[in-house]
Amino acid sequence: MKELVERLYPVCRSITGNGLRRTLEIIGEQVELAVSEVPTGTQVLDWTVPREWNIRDAWVKDAGGRKVIDFAEHNLHIVGYSTPVHATMSLAELREHLHTLPEQPDLIPYRTSYYSETWGFCLRHDVLESLPDGDYEVFIDSTLDDGSLSYGEHVVPGELTDEFIVSCHICHPSLANDNMAGVAVAVELATRLAETKPRYTYRFIFAPGTIGAITWLARNFDRVDRVRGGFTLACAGDRGSLTYKRSRRGDAPVDRAMEHVLRESGREHKVIDFSPYGYDERQYCSPGFNLGVGSLTRTPYAGYPEYHTSGDNPDFVTEESMTDTLDTLWAAVGVLERDRRYVNLSPYGEPQLGRRGLYESLGGRSDTKQAQMAMLWVLNLSDGEHSLLDIAHRAGIPFATVADAADALRGAGLVKE
Amino acid sequence: MKELVERLYPVCRSITGNGLRRTLEIIGEQVELAVSEVPTGTQVLDWTVPREWNIRDAWVKDAGGRKVIDFAEHNLHIVGYSTPVHATMSLAELREHLHTLPEQPDLIPYRTSYYSETWGFCLRHDVLESLPDGDYEVFIDSTLDDGSLSYGEHVVPGELTDEFIVSCHICHPSLANDNMAGVAVAVELATRLAETKPRYTYRFIFAPGTIGAITWLARNFDRVDRVRGGFTLACAGDRGSLTYKRSRRGDAPVDRAMEHVLRESGREHKVIDFSPYGYDERQYCSPGFNLGVGSLTRTPYAGYPEYHTSGDNPDFVTEESMTDTLDTLWAAVGVLERDRRYVNLSPYGEPQLGRRGLYESLGGRSDTKQAQMAMLWVLNLSDGEHSLLDIAHRAGIPFATVADAADALRGAGLVKE
Amino acid sequence: MKELVERLYPVCRSITGNGLRRTLEIIGEQVELAVSEVPTGTQVLDWTVPREWNIRDAWVKDAGGRKVIDFAEHNLHIVGYSTPVHATMSLAELREHLHTLPEQPDLIPYRTSYYSETWGFCLRHDVLESLPDGDYEVFIDSTLDDGSLSYGEHVVPGELTDEFIVSCHICHPSLANDNMAGVAVAVELATRLAETKPRYTYRFIFAPGTIGAITWLARNFDRVDRVRGGFTLACAGDRGSLTYKRSRRGDAPVDRAMEHVLRESGREHKVIDFSPYGYDERQYCSPGFNLGVGSLTRTPYAGYPEYHTSGDNPDFVTEESMTDTLDTLWAAVGVLERDRRYVNLSPYGEPQLGRRGLYESLGGRSDTKQAQMAMLWVLNLSDGEHSLLDIAHRAGIPFATVADAADALRGAGLVKE
Repeated sequence: MKELVERLYPVCRSITGNGLRRTLEIIGEQVELAVSEVPTGTQVLDWTVPREWNIRDAWVKDAGGRKVIDFAEHNLHIVGYSTPVHATMSLAELREHLHTLPEQPDLIPYRTSYYSETWGFCLRHDVLESLPDGDYEVFIDSTLDDGSLSYGEHVVPGELTDEFIVSCHICHPSLANDNMAGVAVAVELATRLAETKPRYTYRFIFAPGTIGAITWLARNFDRVDRVRGGFTLACAGDRGSLTYKRSRRGDAPVDRAMEHVLRESGREHKVIDFSPYGYDERQYCSPGFNLGVGSLTRTPYAGYPEYHTSGDNPDFVTEESMTDTLDTLWAAVGVLERDRRYVNLSPYGEPQLGRRGLYESLGGRSDTKQAQMAMLWVLNLSDGEHSLLDIAHRAGIPFATVADAADALRGAGLVKE
Repeated sequence: MKELVERLYPVCRSITGNGLRRTLEIIGEQVELAVSEVPTGTQVLDWTVPREWNIRDAWVKDAGGRKVIDFAEHNLHIVGYSTPVHATMSLAELREHLHTLPEQPDLIPYRTSYYSETWGFCLRHDVLESLPDGDYEVFIDSTLDDGSLSYGEHVVPGELTDEFIVSCHICHPSLANDNMAGVAVAVELATRLAETKPRYTYRFIFAPGTIGAITWLARNFDRVDRVRGGFTLACAGDRGSLTYKRSRRGDAPVDRAMEHVLRESGREHKVIDFSPYGYDERQYCSPGFNLGVGSLTRTPYAGYPEYHTSGDNPDFVTEESMTDTLDTLWAAVGVLERDRRYVNLSPYGEPQLGRRGLYESLGGRSDTKQAQMAMLWVLNLSDGEHSLLDIAHRAGIPFATVADAADALRGAGLVKE
Repeated sequence: MKELVERLYPVCRSITGNGLRRTLEIIGEQVELAVSEVPTGTQVLDWTVPREWNIRDAWVKDAGGRKVIDFAEHNLHIVGYSTPVHATMSLAELREHLHTLPEQPDLIPYRTSYYSETWGFCLRHDVLESLPDGDYEVFIDSTLDDGSLSYGEHVVPGELTDEFIVSCHICHPSLANDNMAGVAVAVELATRLAETKPRYTYRFIFAPGTIGAITWLARNFDRVDRVRGGFTLACAGDRGSLTYKRSRRGDAPVDRAMEHVLRESGREHKVIDFSPYGYDERQYCSPGFNLGVGSLTRTPYAGYPEYHTSGDNPDFVTEESMTDTLDTLWAAVGVLERDRRYVNLSPYGEPQLGRRGLYESLGGRSDTKQAQMAMLWVLNLSDGEHSLLDIAHRAGIPFATVADAADALRGAGLVKE
């Protein structure tokens, strides 16, 4: 996963343009990707697909002709959606177009201006401080023309057409944790899922933030009722612990699955309530859709000093963290896949498990006693009102143990779906 | 407000009589008051309006003819509803009619005997201790005759006939915090409200405790369904922090409004559950009416040593405390007035706020970021099931900020009532 | 109660057989008992009544003919349901049939093998360690034949046929706390109840664990709808504090009654959620029946080192502990008996209690103020939706005080059922 992050990192992405297409191309080398191009001007819900932005070169030269800011050196130097310019101006005039982080003087900030036409550069505050007065030549070779917005989808088909979505924003240039780490984890999750024959269909959406999700929702307006929920996945690779932000519903299947997995993990984590800010769960959870999509991150957005700066580079993410994020998602998917309600077919008194060899069947397990309790719990609560996850929660037993118990009981004809 | 307390303090009030009428007269000089007189013997719910009590003079003289207890010196010296008497008796006989506070020997207690005919004096325990044996002349020039019970109402009309009530008991003689401070705050609240054109109608009830509220309820039996709730207001001026006691319903509009205001204030306060004791919320919240009336006090009844003694004099209340009580009520009224449910007219995805200038409209505020979040929250939760107060509560944002956001969104045509 | 425990203790019980019958005989000397005998092979729910087991003698002799293990010395020496054997074997062969507690070397464990035919002895680990190699003569004079399973029922009839059950398992040989203490407390509770004319019918069930409860349920399948709930009663005499385990319903009448009684007691106790393990609440609370039966113990099963060993002898239980268990049950029965919903017949405003002498009626109580508050609470919440127990809980007043208040109010015609 780290390799994929490193490969994607240098591409200069935005909410439209060739960097976005190149990103989808690289992802498409890992998993089969259906790429959509939606023309500039298309109405998407309350929004309009904007003009396509591309950039070839951009720099600022001092009076001596030396490049003091150079897009070729770092993608973050240019404000996203900067209009073309070629002019000479005083430092004072130039300063109005420069963005720095005075409190983090050695980091380049990340800035965009999608919906108000302007141009600008981002740079280290230290560099700004060192610029002498005088004239500066400014050059931005960009285009802002009719074109299209690109997004990609990868589907792992399941037995059912009901689907869960995993959505990653891919509009950030040269930020590693936010969100190439999310992309890398999603790609790996898709690969793992493809090796099983899942019950549900899983749709991976790689799209620019906000406008991308809005475009996808607009184009799938009549089909979102098949979406049982999902996750936005971002900041998946930093060294912090996991944070799960609930969907607007608060008790959607993904919420309950992820909370169970995190709680059972016994490791540090946070579960926070939905708020209409953050990543594209804002769109999926808008009241008209209310899709039951939560958000999984490690340290949440704006929660680390490197956030939206040049400090969020590939060194900031680790394979170990991405693996942990992946394993957690995998466990949650395991819950989503196996959770269901059974009905006890022998509900009067306990059925005699010993006679059916069910106690003996547990002999080989390291958790025999817990596995036996799981059987008793499944029998006791399988009244059509409790799902296996409900039972695991009430029993305080890991979901997988409860699901195994249910499988054994179903095999013995004691419960049915 | 302090001045009004000082002016009302010396009047000798009871649950009927001329002191009560004089009190209503003084209040009526501040706000227009409709005074009702309900004749002795009138059936009011399970009760009967009692005979009217008036008192002109009362004293106890020692053997030397010196007044050792004198009603003219302090209203609290006489037990309320004392029957007339003129007799000479030994100290031992007299003692059976004397009430003191042995543990607060320098304070005169407050006692009444409305429903069982007797007479008595209250005095400082120190004085009692100094009385020598011997004969004492006792004189009470009171009357207990058919007459009427008086109460007053002031109405601030609103757009709607639905009303909130603010109810103050006015039967206590020469007690300042309990309840002339409540009266003063209510008068000021009415004055402030009259300067606005409120949505709801506000009815201020100034009536003797228990029998007065019961009389008002009996005479408005068929019209209480227009009452959306309200507050009893008492002990509004002491130096303690605020206590709000919920209505019997526990989640009536006033409960939710007041709890939000107190919580957002960030200051020390208490919110306690309803109990069928205290002030006239007992009557308004009896199960047949169940009106959703809570009680706002500073230190609650019986919660301060000066309670129901001569220590509860004008020095015990401060303008600052009454202002704080008033401001808190005012904020709660603000919530009641502005709280409603909106429906997001653009519920699919977030509407593009920038295009409508809604982000820019926040530029001048000191709380720009919070105001922007408030817009997102209102949009996200305006599904017809959440009121603005629900949203403020869930978002952890002050109600006024949320209501302002809703106004802006309504102005932009994004939500409607 | 201690005497009854001592008398029952030496009888060798199992889930069938003459020891079980003898136990019922002794109980029947205290309270009238209807004994049922259910033949071997009878289908009971998912189970079958097993063959009847009886034992006359059992021992192991060493090479010198000395009895090193002797059933006559302690009932626990024999594994329950051991098949007959008479053979000579090496210590190594014998060891496979011996059960000890290496960590509690001076205690004999309790073991059974009801549903898999085998034989075995239990002994102190110290004794096992002292056995020299050599041949041992093993003798078990037992029978495992068609017969019947025995259980007993004692009924205290009430005004209503709705009943509460108290269920004790009586299959354990020579264990005092588990469960002759439970039996002794149940017998005493039945005796106390018989001295009253209870509103509900109380059924005491003395039956072997699991198969006994299942048999009772099978034979009362069509009549369990009259069971409003109940308690399994076990481990009722050890020195630990009380533990109440809720029924599967969690808020059944017994749950609410017992929790109130324990909370009001102010003494150390535990209330734990239902789990499908423990005593026969497992069967009563199986999802088909879901009877609302909780479990009262002192230290719960497996919670004390003497559990299921020879350490659980009459010295382990105390009269004081059994009395405390009994008193707690009695208080809970008091709640079950008196709890009901009243309707305030004077729901508009407070009725005038003074006029009816209701305040004066409280004069003689040590808790006058609380008793008066109880009246106000009963009046305020008697709207048909709150039971007296609801009211006691909300008011934080002991149930009996609230029930007394309701009686007084009913006497005054202010509330009706």
